[in-house]
Amino acid sequence: DPYLKIFTLNSNPELAQEICKHVGVDLGETSVKRFSDGEVQVNIEESIRGCDVYLVQSTSEPANEHLMELLIMIDACKRASAKTINVVIPYYGYARQDRKARSREPITSKLIANLLENAGATRILTLDLHASQIQGFFDIPVDQLLGTPLFASYFKEKKLEDVVIVSPDHGGVVRARQMADRLEAPIAIIDKRRPRPNVAEVMNIVGDIEGKTAIIVDDIIDTAGTLQLAADALVEQGAERVFASCTHPVLSGPAISRIEESKLEELIVTDTISLPKQKQIPQITQLSVGPLMADAIIRVHEQTSVSSLFN
Amino acid sequence: DPYLKIFTLNSNPELAQEICKHVGVDLGETSVKRFSDGEVQVNIEESIRGCDVYLVQSTSEPANEHLMELLIMIDACKRASAKTINVVIPYYGYARQDRKARSREPITSKLIANLLENAGATRILTLDLHASQIQGFFDIPVDQLLGTPLFASYFKEKKLEDVVIVSPDHGGVVRARQMADRLEAPIAIIDKRRPRPNVAEVMNIVGDIEGKTAIIVDDIIDTAGTLQLAADALVEQGAERVFASCTHPVLSGPAISRIEESKLEELIVTDTISLPKQKQIPQITQLSVGPLMADAIIRVHEQTSVSSLFN
Ligand SMILES: Nc1ncnc2c1ncn2[C@@H]1O[C@H](COP(=O)(O)O)[C@@H](O)[C@H]1O
Ligand SMILES: Nc1ncnc2c1ncn2[C@@H]1O[C@H](COP(=O)(O)O)[C@@H](O)[C@H]1O
Repeated sequence: DPYLKIFTLNSNPELAQEICKHVGVDLGETSVKRFSDGEVQVNIEESIRGCDVYLVQSTSEPANEHLMELLIMIDACKRASAKTINVVIPYYGYARQDRKARSREPITSKLIANLLENAGATRILTLDLHASQIQGFFDIPVDQLLGTPLFASYFKEKKLEDVVIVSPDHGGVVRARQMADRLEAPIAIIDKRRPRPNVAEVMNIVGDIEGKTAIIVDDIIDTAGTLQLAADALVEQGAERVFASCTHPVLSGPAISRIEESKLEELIVTDTISLPKQKQIPQITQLSVGPLMADAIIRVHEQTSVSSLFN
Repeated sequence: DPYLKIFTLNSNPELAQEICKHVGVDLGETSVKRFSDGEVQVNIEESIRGCDVYLVQSTSEPANEHLMELLIMIDACKRASAKTINVVIPYYGYARQDRKARSREPITSKLIANLLENAGATRILTLDLHASQIQGFFDIPVDQLLGTPLFASYFKEKKLEDVVIVSPDHGGVVRARQMADRLEAPIAIIDKRRPRPNVAEVMNIVGDIEGKTAIIVDDIIDTAGTLQLAADALVEQGAERVFASCTHPVLSGPAISRIEESKLEELIVTDTISLPKQKQIPQITQLSVGPLMADAIIRVHEQTSVSSLFN
């Protein structure tokens, strides 16, 4: 379909290529560069008039740069008469700032939803939002894909024995439950508590892990502090092996050294955030969400494009 | 007035201090920092409920970081029940992307106007916009201050003799005319032309500069390429001395070395963009727009605040 155009910005060009391969189209011709003073310069090198445009960009680190690239690109597409502007955001940055946890905090996740709509986005395609409520921050359609099936097949192929799925905190139990259903495994929960003020936290594990293969399930792995503590506590308290799956490998600050020092056997992540060389360590396995995203694009395009009506 | 609060973000803390000094209030308590992964973390440390808030931030380099800080801060102020959110943007970045010069270009200046309004800004206070049309990109009040009087008094105090005001290009003639009126001086225009394709540009000067003190007037000085060429051409073609005034010292890339190598005697700029140490060279004089901005804030506040009705 000549009216389907997929463009990449600078966060995930490899993933965008992977998506194009599975959709069966060539990546659109654009460049997103910087002027001498660091301002974003967007060039769309082919006509997009009347087209269904898909822009692939995670708002990963540097989040502000990637977000501004995306907003400016959306503006350019709108002014170039694109028919629809579908924003494929594999990793939705600022997702943790999704509520006022303290007085006078911003709700940056909602701000960004507004900015994307205001710029001209007509649909959002994303994966494993930190909170599903973020869908409601938008007034345009949001398709949220789920990473669980991808991780579940990977673990099934490994033929691990006597598995227990572990939620690293109370907020993650629903996510752990989904994985446990797919792997037909029981769950356990890490119940972090501070017994008294100014005393170190205790990693109390609720559920049976003795002699088992524990799989910690989370959505974002940032500084890996909790992950390291959880993995070590699991081994100390009787688990035989410890794996972890986290959709979005933010991996900031001390994350890599913490993972290397931890008792974690393997960490499975996706390519929603592209990993620079120094973060590609043997302990980390990266699965591509390209096929998943490509399927979603094909489905969306079939349902919404005018040309599909004539096929 | 306890309902007038001025906050600074990270682009121009010294200018914000200067503004507060002239308004006669203390700078509000906030911090705008980064999380480990580079996402902006805003903390407003005092109540702003019902207040008229003024946020001081230029969207200067790094433009995307400074802009996102500003948008997130506006969001936080809105959710903290500020009565009005007045955005003081001494330098409005992305101002040069204010029209589609080529097919499929974005109009980033307009996008940013939309984003600021959408985030919750209720008024804009700025100085020497690259194009006055940018005022019309907003649907909220925009107060544009002018730098010309500041530069004119500076030049008057220097008691320069036989002055001619020079516009470095055709687009700058109106600006040059304003300065010429204040200094009661004639004008000249640099008429850059390329005689044939692939031949170097010729700096043809329209107007009499022989033996005179030339003052080049511009709004933004970025890589200083044009400025260097213009200054050197003026001296080569008979000017006795060459000065320049530019409101916004972007000074990216080779700018500083070009200025140092040029025939320019002195470049006068303002503090709408704060200059790091390595850009503070003897040839550059920086005038503060603090008093000007403070006056404008006092005027706006007197006209719009409820408390003023009871004074
Ligand atoms: N980029 C970030 N890095 C670390 N913490 C964050 C970040 N963004 C927001 N937060 C904080 O994380 C908390 C929410 O995280 P969660 O409970 O996992 O949803 C809130 O207190 C936020 O202020
Ligand atoms: N940050 C920037 N640095 C250099 N050129 C720019 C920048 N932003 C926009 N432009 C270009 O500058 C031209 C407009 O400049 P002007 O004619 O001075 O208004 C347009 O062709 C823009 O694409």
